[in-house]
Amino acid sequence: MILIGERINAGFKDIATAIREKDPAPVKSWAEKQAQRGADYLDVNIGAASRKPEDMAWLVKTVQETVPTKISVDSTNLEIVEAGLEAVDGRGALINSTTADPGKLEKLVPLAVKHNASLLGVAMDKRGSPPDASRRVENAATIFAAAMEGGLEPERIILDPILMPLKFMQEQAKNVLEAIGQCMILSDPPPHISVGLSNIASKTTQRSLILRTFLVMAMAYGLDAAICDVMDDELIAAIATAELILNKEIYSDSYVRAFRLKAGASG
Amino acid sequence: MILIGERINAGFKDIATAIREKDPAPVKSWAEKQAQRGADYLDVNIGAASRKPEDMAWLVKTVQETVPTKISVDSTNLEIVEAGLEAVDGRGALINSTTADPGKLEKLVPLAVKHNASLLGVAMDKRGSPPDASRRVENAATIFAAAMEGGLEPERIILDPILMPLKFMQEQAKNVLEAIGQCMILSDPPPHISVGLSNIASKTTQRSLILRTFLVMAMAYGLDAAICDVMDDELIAAIATAELILNKEIYSDSYVRAFRLKAGASG
Repeated sequence: MILIGERINAGFKDIATAIREKDPAPVKSWAEKQAQRGADYLDVNIGAASRKPEDMAWLVKTVQETVPTKISVDSTNLEIVEAGLEAVDGRGALINSTTADPGKLEKLVPLAVKHNASLLGVAMDKRGSPPDASRRVENAATIFAAAMEGGLEPERIILDPILMPLKFMQEQAKNVLEAIGQCMILSDPPPHISVGLSNIASKTTQRSLILRTFLVMAMAYGLDAAICDVMDDELIAAIATAELILNKEIYSDSYVRAFRLKAGASG
Repeated sequence: MILIGERINAGFKDIATAIREKDPAPVKSWAEKQAQRGADYLDVNIGAASRKPEDMAWLVKTVQETVPTKISVDSTNLEIVEAGLEAVDGRGALINSTTADPGKLEKLVPLAVKHNASLLGVAMDKRGSPPDASRRVENAATIFAAAMEGGLEPERIILDPILMPLKFMQEQAKNVLEAIGQCMILSDPPPHISVGLSNIASKTTQRSLILRTFLVMAMAYGLDAAICDVMDDELIAAIATAELILNKEIYSDSYVRAFRLKAGASG
């Protein structure tokens, strides 16, 4: 399971303030905490707090000074993505994200190749968010084909079938599960599949319950990555259990703890 | 989701003692509690506490005096099953269980038809527990075909792909998930699929976590019934959440409570 820690994101007030004031403390604190909890990547996003590429570079460098964890450079702006990738030292990086839009793919695929980065593609196109499973798979296949053609190995491609809020678009959760199942047959071995997990629980009363229940159901279909709150102990325990059930980790009486340690060590 | 309450079983000491002493109090107490918590059926099993068919009849009658919930007559002994079914009043009943053994099917299918009962078939044959997904599906298909041929409608057939302890036969959990997926294409609409949930957590340290994680993963594959501990609040909350994700129940901020009430009302 590839765990991408979501917390270094200017959507959170403490990070937005840190970026504006160039205060490394909150960034370092979240980098440490998420790395300890088993994050494989730390997502880094300057959001609406800044439009300056150098702020992304500062954020990446601040994280790198703190932990050896790989970096997920998260922006829809090409210049900001480039600045983030330039700032990444030798460690692995992930571009978060491209869409199926050809204009994006023709820029971001070569950028991933140039920086030896992985590429996360959200299954969206110019028509907007997909209304069903088949549009998701169609967009995912477009991204996968373009990335392969551009020179990325399958193991560096992560497809995201786009989760939507359960409270407002309830039927989409099932469409995402179906899309995951269909994306699994795009290649052998199958591509990595991820979701931005928090979306599904937007404005719900049972946030953590919905997150962990959806995630293990999606894992049953083949999902093997998530951008999520790695500080959520119940979520991590559910993921560790799903890994046992799928026979990807070996049972021991302390398997939840073992999962944390192993995840943290590979981060 | 069809919830079959597991607790009136002589495998539990209080029920074994109640059967021996003909003390209705513990039986009535568990009948009430499980019905309140949303059980659709109450499983009734005299286990090793007795070999007397009249003890099964006593147990069934004691439950029926207490709640209107349907009865799951649980025994591998034909005479005990018959005594249980004879004792059931007009309410619905379930025979738990047949296997794919032709000798069993030729007796239990007509018995289900005669008593207007549903039939649960565990995907086992004379060779014993199935080692993989395909043997499970083969046995399930045998049961399904024999039951249909004998006059049971698909909605009265429940197939059980046989869960095994995760701690000792870890690879079997994934085989069960695969078997569920394959059983879904035996008919349209698909047959009901159930598991005896507790088996998977045998001798584990994280009992409730393993139970609820497996169950929602199995629901993602199509499982729609379980013999389980309906008193486990976290299990029921996970089931309610999986029903939302699969778009089988409508979201409300109090959906967990709504699920309990609805389940209890239909029980």
